[in-house]
Amino acid sequence: MDELLMIPGPVPLHPRVMNAMAKQMINHRGDEFGRIMDYCVERLKEIFATENDVLIISGSGTAGMEAAISNFVSGKLVCIQNGKFGERFVKIGKRYCESVVELKFEWGTSIDLEKVEMALSEGAEAVTMVHNETSTGILNPAREVAKLAEKYDALFILDAITSAGGDEVRVDDWGVDVAVVGSQKCLGAPPGISAVAVSERAWSRLTGKAPYYLDLESYRNSLEKTPSQTPYTPALPLFFALYEALKIIEEETMEKRIKRHRMLSEGCRKAMTAMGLELFPELNDHSRYSNTVTAIKMPEGITDDQLRGTVKKEFGVIIAGGQDILKGRIFRIGNMGNVGVKEMITTISAVESVLYRFGVVKEMGRGMESAMEVYGG
Amino acid sequence: MDELLMIPGPVPLHPRVMNAMAKQMINHRGDEFGRIMDYCVERLKEIFATENDVLIISGSGTAGMEAAISNFVSGKLVCIQNGKFGERFVKIGKRYCESVVELKFEWGTSIDLEKVEMALSEGAEAVTMVHNETSTGILNPAREVAKLAEKYDALFILDAITSAGGDEVRVDDWGVDVAVVGSQKCLGAPPGISAVAVSERAWSRLTGKAPYYLDLESYRNSLEKTPSQTPYTPALPLFFALYEALKIIEEETMEKRIKRHRMLSEGCRKAMTAMGLELFPELNDHSRYSNTVTAIKMPEGITDDQLRGTVKKEFGVIIAGGQDILKGRIFRIGNMGNVGVKEMITTISAVESVLYRFGVVKEMGRGMESAMEVYGG
Repeated sequence: MDELLMIPGPVPLHPRVMNAMAKQMINHRGDEFGRIMDYCVERLKEIFATENDVLIISGSGTAGMEAAISNFVSGKLVCIQNGKFGERFVKIGKRYCESVVELKFEWGTSIDLEKVEMALSEGAEAVTMVHNETSTGILNPAREVAKLAEKYDALFILDAITSAGGDEVRVDDWGVDVAVVGSQKCLGAPPGISAVAVSERAWSRLTGKAPYYLDLESYRNSLEKTPSQTPYTPALPLFFALYEALKIIEEETMEKRIKRHRMLSEGCRKAMTAMGLELFPELNDHSRYSNTVTAIKMPEGITDDQLRGTVKKEFGVIIAGGQDILKGRIFRIGNMGNVGVKEMITTISAVESVLYRFGVVKEMGRGMESAMEVYGG
Repeated sequence: MDELLMIPGPVPLHPRVMNAMAKQMINHRGDEFGRIMDYCVERLKEIFATENDVLIISGSGTAGMEAAISNFVSGKLVCIQNGKFGERFVKIGKRYCESVVELKFEWGTSIDLEKVEMALSEGAEAVTMVHNETSTGILNPAREVAKLAEKYDALFILDAITSAGGDEVRVDDWGVDVAVVGSQKCLGAPPGISAVAVSERAWSRLTGKAPYYLDLESYRNSLEKTPSQTPYTPALPLFFALYEALKIIEEETMEKRIKRHRMLSEGCRKAMTAMGLELFPELNDHSRYSNTVTAIKMPEGITDDQLRGTVKKEFGVIIAGGQDILKGRIFRIGNMGNVGVKEMITTISAVESVLYRFGVVKEMGRGMESAMEVYGG
């Protein structure tokens, strides 16, 4: 059997999404592709809760992040960072912006809105934040930062790569100028596509300095053709897959989908703490645990290799380790996309069994019991 | 039934390639992906006839072209142009280079090597050329331009997007510094992946100004990890498809594959001229007809819509029109990837029937007869 991928993306595909790709190629300038594109754009607008333009790029989430910066910022950029993906905006920003202010918070801690306001009050063209920091399992306060950005006339660029499709991302209500999502996370599609939602305020600040491949104006122009197109040949099978994944989301409805993600992650958190483990994030009033990935401190008495290696070898379940400075210090369980209670209990029992075997957990079943209080009987 | 796509890419997929994509996602940092990546790199090296590094990008051919320019050229760039894709290098070059010299030849005519030499003798950091100009059906002289580039110490950047995998591209023998291929052409894979072969001479001239997403040094570093990786999440289904497409090439052998492409295009050219049509390219001593796409002048007595529209509507065969200034003036038949005699005779008979019905061709069967002289009985 296939391994069960419980990492924070790529996520396991629904069979319908897999099968959608086993389809013959079509003319990418024809009506059929135009209809696929139109549907994807329409659905992504609902997922982003926006009337803004949504542009779809054949490239991973990083391509979307680079499009977000390079098209709209050339002056001073403030980058909020409390995890690995926050750092990525800094690296990209340095290629396009006159100056980049790194507003750093320790990985795993919450951001401090007063410090954000202080940085913005000194003047900035834009501020970036990762909504759902998968490296640490924190959901950062997008609504609050959006307000500050508006107050100081900075564009607000939000990496919603691992939140959109699994949690609330209210682009218009909150006032997000540029929001980015990747296909292989909560949308439940394979990796290779990213989408960017762009506000009128952002369009009014076009830099003209984006890479040719990521020039969002050309994407917008191609989308206005009949039938809708992309400026360069699109990755057709990934569009077929995205189309099907978005159909599944439409059938489930976003409301139920968000509830499901919240329930699955809540059960996971309860299970882990019931086993005596500690969640990694340190929350303040404005932060929440991620609803799409849970980060747990590696307990005493077992190594990363022993835990994740045994879970993989004996149960065929892949969970994620820590990245960079967190390597060996935490492990992470994703619940993005179309996974359900079945996959979560498989994962929780696998982790619990291994911890029990290594003597980290003294009594078997406490974790599963707590999870089931959330998941129901 | 599916339509038969006889455009110069995307090409119809072999069923094995389609089915390869209906596969569950895997950990993109794991051993299985590493093996897929290693195999793809090894095979692409053979197809490019090179020992140089080959880097694979999740992005269309245009992303590969932009990587080729942005990583290695910042000074003066000479762009040879005798078709639409030659112009693309100019647009990209203007974003990264101090100056871009456009060496223009009329679309459909051959390039003049003396003029290329004259331009290079005035000093240039690099020269770009499209090997196989699909917009006009010409194969440009890569070996000869490579020699001139070496003589004047310019990097030679070759767009081999629609030649590699279907015709000879001898990167090392010729001295191509940067060669680009796209997945959806002669390799017979779906669109969305490009690969770039980079010489030592090119590496020694890194500009450090490439987009973050297209920074080839980071691709090289990721490839050196164990297992082999990509710097950002790869478009997994497209890698599964490319792997299978390259397996098919290995089974066929490049020698036979090139022969097949040559035979199929020769039959197409013979059929078209036997029907009294004229091929579009004007060749000189250094140019050849493309072996992967045939461009034919639109004859009197029929419009583009009538010809291509009827061929599509009544036979389910999609052939290409002219692009930009050639719209309505030419039509094009691709024979890239895994199409065979069956697909070619379907296409040729469809075209012949429609031309006969519109009175352009007076006698039915001359085209097919000539094609069969090449394809055998």
